[in-house]
Amino acid sequence: MWIVPEAKIAGLMDRATCFAAIEGVFGAMARGDAYNFPVIREAIGHADALYGFKSGFDRAGLALGLKSGGYWPGNEAKGLTNHQSTVVLFDPDTGRVKALVGGNLLTALRTAAASAVSIKHLARPDAKVLGMVGAGHQSAFQMRAAVEQRAFEKVVGWNFHPEMLDRLAGVAAELGLPFEAVSLDELGAQSDVIITITSSHKPILRSAQVKAGTHIACMGTDTKGKQEVDDLLVARATVFTDEVAQAISIGECQHAIASGLMAEAEIAELGAVINGSHKGRTSAEEVTLFDGTGVGLQDLAVAAAVVELAIAKGIAIEVDF
Amino acid sequence: MWIVPEAKIAGLMDRATCFAAIEGVFGAMARGDAYNFPVIREAIGHADALYGFKSGFDRAGLALGLKSGGYWPGNEAKGLTNHQSTVVLFDPDTGRVKALVGGNLLTALRTAAASAVSIKHLARPDAKVLGMVGAGHQSAFQMRAAVEQRAFEKVVGWNFHPEMLDRLAGVAAELGLPFEAVSLDELGAQSDVIITITSSHKPILRSAQVKAGTHIACMGTDTKGKQEVDDLLVARATVFTDEVAQAISIGECQHAIASGLMAEAEIAELGAVINGSHKGRTSAEEVTLFDGTGVGLQDLAVAAAVVELAIAKGIAIEVDF
Repeated sequence: MWIVPEAKIAGLMDRATCFAAIEGVFGAMARGDAYNFPVIREAIGHADALYGFKSGFDRAGLALGLKSGGYWPGNEAKGLTNHQSTVVLFDPDTGRVKALVGGNLLTALRTAAASAVSIKHLARPDAKVLGMVGAGHQSAFQMRAAVEQRAFEKVVGWNFHPEMLDRLAGVAAELGLPFEAVSLDELGAQSDVIITITSSHKPILRSAQVKAGTHIACMGTDTKGKQEVDDLLVARATVFTDEVAQAISIGECQHAIASGLMAEAEIAELGAVINGSHKGRTSAEEVTLFDGTGVGLQDLAVAAAVVELAIAKGIAIEVDF
Repeated sequence: MWIVPEAKIAGLMDRATCFAAIEGVFGAMARGDAYNFPVIREAIGHADALYGFKSGFDRAGLALGLKSGGYWPGNEAKGLTNHQSTVVLFDPDTGRVKALVGGNLLTALRTAAASAVSIKHLARPDAKVLGMVGAGHQSAFQMRAAVEQRAFEKVVGWNFHPEMLDRLAGVAAELGLPFEAVSLDELGAQSDVIITITSSHKPILRSAQVKAGTHIACMGTDTKGKQEVDDLLVARATVFTDEVAQAISIGECQHAIASGLMAEAEIAELGAVINGSHKGRTSAEEVTLFDGTGVGLQDLAVAAAVVELAIAKGIAIEVDF
């Protein structure tokens, strides 16, 4: 079996490989070639930790396995990342363990790749302004992946704690783009593409603030009770997601579904657009929304890709298991 | 992190350590210190494989993690074990991966230890004859563990395919015990302790065949639809199990519950007997039955024990992960 330690991932994985892996597995999911198993998520009653697994099988890519880990709020004080993830891949022909892969950086990269894939397939081709709602650790990954999909000329940003907007300004500068800290009204009025990446439990961005033609990627809501945009915006938009079952239960769609403003049948898989079986955006005025909930198959896809790279470059550690 | 490859387990793990780990974790479960998470089990639609995870957390033993794996029917033709298991342990204080442990031999040993623990706590002290129903791979492990709990003087055995009884005869000889191949009527009439370890989908042993005072450990039923003994025997016996939720859904109790012959409240945890909060057997005539369904916490307990042994003996492989 192969081991790819967390510390080696940064030098191995590039955004293009990650993007291709995520686009590929979303397509496989929509074709019925790949499916996620039920998610296990437990408050273990120790160290205030949330722990669990996301798992699945991609028959096309032959990726079988799980991402295990969770959230340990006391880690930061110990110099560790609060979110801890490890991916285990199995050989689908024999069931033997194939690889153990550090999952922390991969989780950030695959989450960023998902919104980038949605921008590629759903944003207006002439999008110029990128709006960022949220300025936490993950926001930098989202911005870097997003700007590769359109000829953006400017980034505007808003955060609940304005002092954290330095992060967005810094990443925009690194990308050679002007950055402006704005109100939510200004953000909606200027942005052609908006990424929300917060851990909010009440709507931040409202439909009335969003102009026609915008594409919104809601990337922060992955738990019952979280919410980043109002349900009017979800109901107004043409909605796409990674997995419908997750969107309606733990994703941004949970609220519009609960309030009766939209039906499950109105939610399409982003993979159907990738495969060409859904037409995606049909006009320059349409508002499109991607509800990115995060599925285990994304983790398996990027981990499988990084294992190949690590083997090819002689970085993977081989253990006779 | 530490790696303990499958090939090293045989030289590390002994039955006494395994027994202590299983007895300890059953006790922790009954005290509410340890619990199993929901089981994931999927027919993946590839290589006819069943794949999944059993997982849990023992707050007392600080064992957190999962056993991943499943059943690959085509493995034997490739020179591999059909059942493939791998245990992953995590540090409950930080969520970082702690150890990766080969789980094939451990699964056999922990399953055998469970029936042995039930014999220690439930069989009559003067038990002399051990009856074995089933002569597959696992039966040898069960017999070796069982005979350490009482002063058995004889082993009797039955198998659907009589030609496989050589396995039981061989193990009995190795243990210095006479062995007799018998009918099920004779097996029930002679045995003080009976272990059933088959993959049967219909009752093999019937209540009318079992004499008063017998302890029966039903170890083969771990899936909806499987059954080793008739529901009259389950209803007649004082019933104990590793986990009540599994006993009534995928264990031997599923049938007596479905037919209304017993109620869930009549099933006790073996851990309660270990802890002294359940009196266990109360007379020499009572029939006791242990429904061993197999829980993730057993896998974590034996894997944690083997990691300690492997580190102490310098056999564990350390990887900077």
